[in-house]
Amino acid sequence: MSIKISDDYLIGFIEGEGCFYTGIVPSRDTKNGFQVIPFFKVSQNPKGKVILDFLKKRLDCGYIKPNDSKNSSDKSLAYVVRDIFSLKSKVIPFFEEKLFIKREEFQKFRKIIELMVEKKHLTTQGFREIIDISYSMNTGNRKISKEQLIDNIK
Amino acid sequence: MSIKISDDYLIGFIEGEGCFYTGIVPSRDTKNGFQVIPFFKVSQNPKGKVILDFLKKRLDCGYIKPNDSKNSSDKSLAYVVRDIFSLKSKVIPFFEEKLFIKREEFQKFRKIIELMVEKKHLTTQGFREIIDISYSMNTGNRKISKEQLIDNIK
Repeated sequence: MSIKISDDYLIGFIEGEGCFYTGIVPSRDTKNGFQVIPFFKVSQNPKGKVILDFLKKRLDCGYIKPNDSKNSSDKSLAYVVRDIFSLKSKVIPFFEEKLFIKREEFQKFRKIIELMVEKKHLTTQGFREIIDISYSMNTGNRKISKEQLIDNIK
Repeated sequence: MSIKISDDYLIGFIEGEGCFYTGIVPSRDTKNGFQVIPFFKVSQNPKGKVILDFLKKRLDCGYIKPNDSKNSSDKSLAYVVRDIFSLKSKVIPFFEEKLFIKREEFQKFRKIIELMVEKKHLTTQGFREIIDISYSMNTGNRKISKEQLIDNIK
């Protein structure tokens, strides 16, 4: 089925269903012992796949995968963009000045991407700034508290 | 804040967050012992109120109320349209031919509204048809199974 979906439709859809998130996870590959993983994600049950497909095509980046879930009967899918270049050059410009509900979340996310593009996450000060912004956003099910994280910076 | 939100944005938003639902509940006021209650509903946490307000204004009907919840700490809100006239003349025309994910749900809902406008829900055959359609839709947390319902028609 060939469908035509407007940008406004996609933006309204993402206001409800999208998520701008930054994970900070332990890593052996970095000097400070942590890796910053920002991503844009939209989860849907299989019925919504048509929109995820369209969004992927429109943003011209990212991938669709089974959604992470502890529930193995969960058949939901997720459209995910993780690479910094795509986030900076494709995802962020698409939503710039367009969101109402997720405006603040988006602005914080954009700031983190800017810092990472400038490699500031590799500096002590930049990394602390990213932690502060990240933990002031949607906290989800973070495995490490902000305090634990800061205590474990190498 | 005065905001301008396009119809396409609202439609995309409703694809994710909206619900077309038909409750069928016991009633002393009807001959067959049941009342058919179709409604259109969009739930949001308080951050999303700006969109609910705009949607209410755009559709020119319905109301915003605290969301039904067993969890008293739940501060979420719901925009609801329940009256048949508004559903038929305002809600349905707005979404006609516009939905992708909720297309089937919408078409079934529209059929129920058509039957009710024609007062078919007051006939045995029409009421049975509404039960069939309704129970083939989003079943949510229905308190009565279809079999129980049919067994208790007066």
